[in-house]
Parts: sequence; C-alpha cells; structure tokens
Amino acid sequence: MITKIDHIGIAVKSLEEAIEKYKTLGLRITKIEEVHTEKVRVAFIPCGETKIELLEPTSKESPIWRFIKKKGEGIHHIALFFEGDLKSFSEHLEDKGVCTLKKPISKGADGKAVQFIHPNSMGGVLVELVSLWKGNS
Amino acid sequence: MITKIDHIGIAVKSLEEAIEKYKTLGLRITKIEEVHTEKVRVAFIPCGETKIELLEPTSKESPIWRFIKKKGEGIHHIALFFEGDLKSFSEHLEDKGVCTLKKPISKGADGKAVQFIHPNSMGGVLVELVSLWKGNS
Repeated sequence: MITKIDHIGIAVKSLEEAIEKYKTLGLRITKIEEVHTEKVRVAFIPCGETKIELLEPTSKESPIWRFIKKKGEGIHHIALFFEGDLKSFSEHLEDKGVCTLKKPISKGADGKAVQFIHPNSMGGVLVELVSLWKGNS
Repeated sequence: MITKIDHIGIAVKSLEEAIEKYKTLGLRITKIEEVHTEKVRVAFIPCGETKIELLEPTSKESPIWRFIKKKGEGIHHIALFFEGDLKSFSEHLEDKGVCTLKKPISKGADGKAVQFIHPNSMGGVLVELVSLWKGNS
C-alpha cells in the first residue's frame, strides 16, 4: 500500500545555484550526498513528511545529465513510499500491464528497496517506488 | 513558513485514462472537479498528507493544453503549503529577486490563497504557494 510521497526529484545543472533558490523560500538543506551509482550529487530538503531532492549530474553518463540535455532543468521523478513487499507488488503491477524497470528490485539510497515505473505506464511521469529492503530473491 | 507539499499537479490528456493508471497503484480518487477559471478538470488523489492532482485541459486556451502541446504529459507544478501571510511572503520573495506571477494574490481551489513563482526563479520548476485566504489587500 502506498502511504505517502517519499520525495520529489528535481534535475538541476548546479546544486549550489539551486540551493540558493530554495533557501529563499525558507527551506533548509539537511545534507548533500554523492550517489556514485547514479552519477549525481543530491541535496536533501525536508518538506513535511516528504523531501525535495535536488539532483546534479556529476558526469555525462548520468541519467540526470541526459534528462537536462533533452528537457532542461525541472522535475525528474516522484517517489512514492510503499509499505509491504515491493517484489510482490512489482509482479502484481506487471500482471496489470504496468512496465517496471528494475528486475530484480535494487537497493537504492538509505539502503531502501527501489523500483521504477516507465513514464509510458504512468501518464508521462517517471514514478519511483521506495520501500524497506527485504531482499530481492 | 512552508510546512508541507500541498499537492503535485500532473498534466494529462485524458483524466479517465490517467485515473486507471493511478488506480493500478492502489491509489484512490476522492473527487473530480471542473475548474472553469483554469479550463481544467481535476481528479484528486490523496497520498499521505499531500495530494496528486491530475489535470485535464477542457479547452485549447487552458495553460495545461499548452503545456502538453509543448512538453507532453507529465508533472506540471508542485504546490507548497505556506503557513502565514502569503502577501507579505510574496513581497519578501520579490525583494530577494524571486519572480512571482500573481499580483495581487488570487483565490484558488478550495478558496485558498494562491501565488505562483516563475520556473526561472526555481530551477525550471513551476512552484505554487498555497495558503489560507486572508484577503489580498
């Protein structure tokens, strides 16, 4: 069951410039992390029960670099928190004709289980599903 | 002070088709409303303390119709809930060089006070600020 929006991922060219913009809204940045597997630097901005994550590519091989080149800066994905067995839920979605991207489910930031749904299956929106890690077998 | 994400607005061509997609995730639609001023039909999907709002244009004059024509279906804006005097906050933002779009602040859905920030001021993201209505004078 989906219980909340876990975070909103926003693709930016420069983390430092973007941070200044979000700071003018009175929002605070709690940490900046480099995620080597995704070739991004991430700034975390808590907002109620969810977070805004600013994503800056660290390489031209980063999916965020390709996104910015194609569409410009902007919202890259929304992540929904799923409470339950994400592997079974992914199989259920596939049965319903929803195209999932991670087979098997992978371990993402904070050691959480992560699945992605293709934008074509969700009205143009890249949807990430985040859950507690319970293994992928 | 910004306390939470109020909603995420997603531009879709067909509300009925998009609703079916979001239903496969186990999300439920609480209501569908037509907002004549914005020339859209809106489906509301609660998600924790926030909402997903699916926006279907009802006319070619709708900003959502123009968005879809230019960029395709996808996330149109994020709305942040502001607790306090939105008029003073808007003036504060203008002083900081942030470009706001509603002068004066207007009354939006649910009779709330609404302000928009230009995407150029927020790293490519159209940010809406929502607050309790306290008049615009």
